[in-house]
Amino acid sequence: MTTLISRNWVLANRPVGEPTLDAFDMTTDEVPAPKEGEIQVKNTWMSVDPYMRGRMIDRKSYIPPFKIGKTLQGGAVGHVTASKHPDFKEGDLVLSMAGWREAWTAAPKAAMATKLPSNTGLPESAFLGIAGMPGLTAYAGLLRVAELKEGDIVFVSGAAGAVGSTVVQIAKIKGCTVIGSAGGPEKVDLVKSLGADECIDYREAGNYEGLLNALRNAAPDGIDVYFDNVGGDHLQAAIEVARPFARFAMCGMISQYNDTTPTPGPNNLMQIIGKQLQLKGFIVSSNTDLQPQFMKDMAGWLAEGKMKFEETVMEGIENAPVAFIGLFHGQNKGKMLVKLA
Amino acid sequence: MTTLISRNWVLANRPVGEPTLDAFDMTTDEVPAPKEGEIQVKNTWMSVDPYMRGRMIDRKSYIPPFKIGKTLQGGAVGHVTASKHPDFKEGDLVLSMAGWREAWTAAPKAAMATKLPSNTGLPESAFLGIAGMPGLTAYAGLLRVAELKEGDIVFVSGAAGAVGSTVVQIAKIKGCTVIGSAGGPEKVDLVKSLGADECIDYREAGNYEGLLNALRNAAPDGIDVYFDNVGGDHLQAAIEVARPFARFAMCGMISQYNDTTPTPGPNNLMQIIGKQLQLKGFIVSSNTDLQPQFMKDMAGWLAEGKMKFEETVMEGIENAPVAFIGLFHGQNKGKMLVKLA
Repeated sequence: MTTLISRNWVLANRPVGEPTLDAFDMTTDEVPAPKEGEIQVKNTWMSVDPYMRGRMIDRKSYIPPFKIGKTLQGGAVGHVTASKHPDFKEGDLVLSMAGWREAWTAAPKAAMATKLPSNTGLPESAFLGIAGMPGLTAYAGLLRVAELKEGDIVFVSGAAGAVGSTVVQIAKIKGCTVIGSAGGPEKVDLVKSLGADECIDYREAGNYEGLLNALRNAAPDGIDVYFDNVGGDHLQAAIEVARPFARFAMCGMISQYNDTTPTPGPNNLMQIIGKQLQLKGFIVSSNTDLQPQFMKDMAGWLAEGKMKFEETVMEGIENAPVAFIGLFHGQNKGKMLVKLA
Repeated sequence: MTTLISRNWVLANRPVGEPTLDAFDMTTDEVPAPKEGEIQVKNTWMSVDPYMRGRMIDRKSYIPPFKIGKTLQGGAVGHVTASKHPDFKEGDLVLSMAGWREAWTAAPKAAMATKLPSNTGLPESAFLGIAGMPGLTAYAGLLRVAELKEGDIVFVSGAAGAVGSTVVQIAKIKGCTVIGSAGGPEKVDLVKSLGADECIDYREAGNYEGLLNALRNAAPDGIDVYFDNVGGDHLQAAIEVARPFARFAMCGMISQYNDTTPTPGPNNLMQIIGKQLQLKGFIVSSNTDLQPQFMKDMAGWLAEGKMKFEETVMEGIENAPVAFIGLFHGQNKGKMLVKLA
């Protein structure tokens, strides 16, 4: 039986506004050999995602808040190093919610761990991105929530991010016109390289009027679908250019996650009525029934070269908080990941 | 052949903020005898509705703006006084969009005129209210847009108005718990007399915090459906108490129709995501396919005494602008109508 050492990140306190390194404490644990029904896993990759910011707030939500003094949680992939569970054997590749740590021992169910196929040809990290939660988020949001159909004009904010970049590509595969929004020329180039017909540089646009003008220019005929990762001005501009019966998949509002006071919403909500818009919020965990179909489609698209994915990788668990904070500065192109030693 | 005299209300100018009498000019016309394919109609009732405020603004919308110097339009019922159309004969009861005038001659299609059944036992005015556009609005909004189901907890603002009071009753017929909001004790009593389980007096509540507290008390378990006639604070409070997967039928925002500058929206739109809410705008004219089913259901409910309706009647076309302006002061209980001489 092996004992492993794991460095872990603990929530030190609840950040107010933008999280800083003060909010995180590192601990070091001995990870014991598994007891009956447990597995011991060494993580190889962990995920940082914008939604984790919400879990740092002490409030009732669809997912319980992180607890102060306890190790954070999040998506991770790793390999089984010892198993006393009949379904897992040493070397198995495992996806779990036991991230923010280097290794762990637990019953698979407690860690929300599932065995990953080893024959996909995909890098392990893909199961935290394009073939994982962000990929399924894009898939479910577009196909189920926004009821995407061929010929739709689709606008997606955060288009260079993990979810947004997948939205761009799925919408193109489905025969849509796609307009992205991203911050800075490098990201705009990325979004265009993924097939977007147009991409707005919202930083260059400067303010709401600039953003709206840029969107009007990019979508002179309006939009049928808006995939919202950003909220705020992006949402208001999308309402402004929406065509009648446009569908909005409300996925995230990263522009507001660090707000310390409530931010007023768009000033044009009355258009929801006249244009008969549908704004539908969703979270990926309510759409896991789509997982088999998603994996089938996504594996096919990847194999056929129709789907690309970008990753921004930070090395070492010591950099996990920096990677997380970087999400709110747009430091990632595609999926932000932490590679563990 | 008869010639009639009609007094008509013309849009004198586009009101800024709350409409005043200055915005209306009265004209007097001779209404000619009908030509081939036309009918001549003397209106007996005309409707004033909140949505007409939007048509006074010069903007692209789902319905063209009123034109300055032209007679306003709106729902009206009347009797055919002369006909050169094969489907209409003298004495027929007609519903049209040729309101804001006492009489008219036109092809039925141009006036959006349809013949009404004469054997319903309903007063003529009902076809402008409970058995007309506001009734269908409530029916379509609840049953189609909000996908109402038995046992839902339903919140409806403007619950003493033409649409709201019908929403209350349909939701009760369908086995739901109903919480209304209305302004002042008299209206609260009306809403309760229509079967609402609770009714908030938003005037007594005073401000957003008061409204939210009142709603929390009235709906301690949250709400599944919100039927929005008011917007603003009511919408924000509804989002706050919404249960996961709640559906919002977005019908009107009377609190904002007279705003001179754009009003910021609710500051809690992020909850749309976490609670997976659906906000769906709709207009009744997109739901006229429900008309036959609506009339069948409504006639049954009225005949069985399950459905009541309230009317606030002003006498004489000279009072039509006063009636219209009164809508924005909550001067109506139930449907606001103008009885023509």
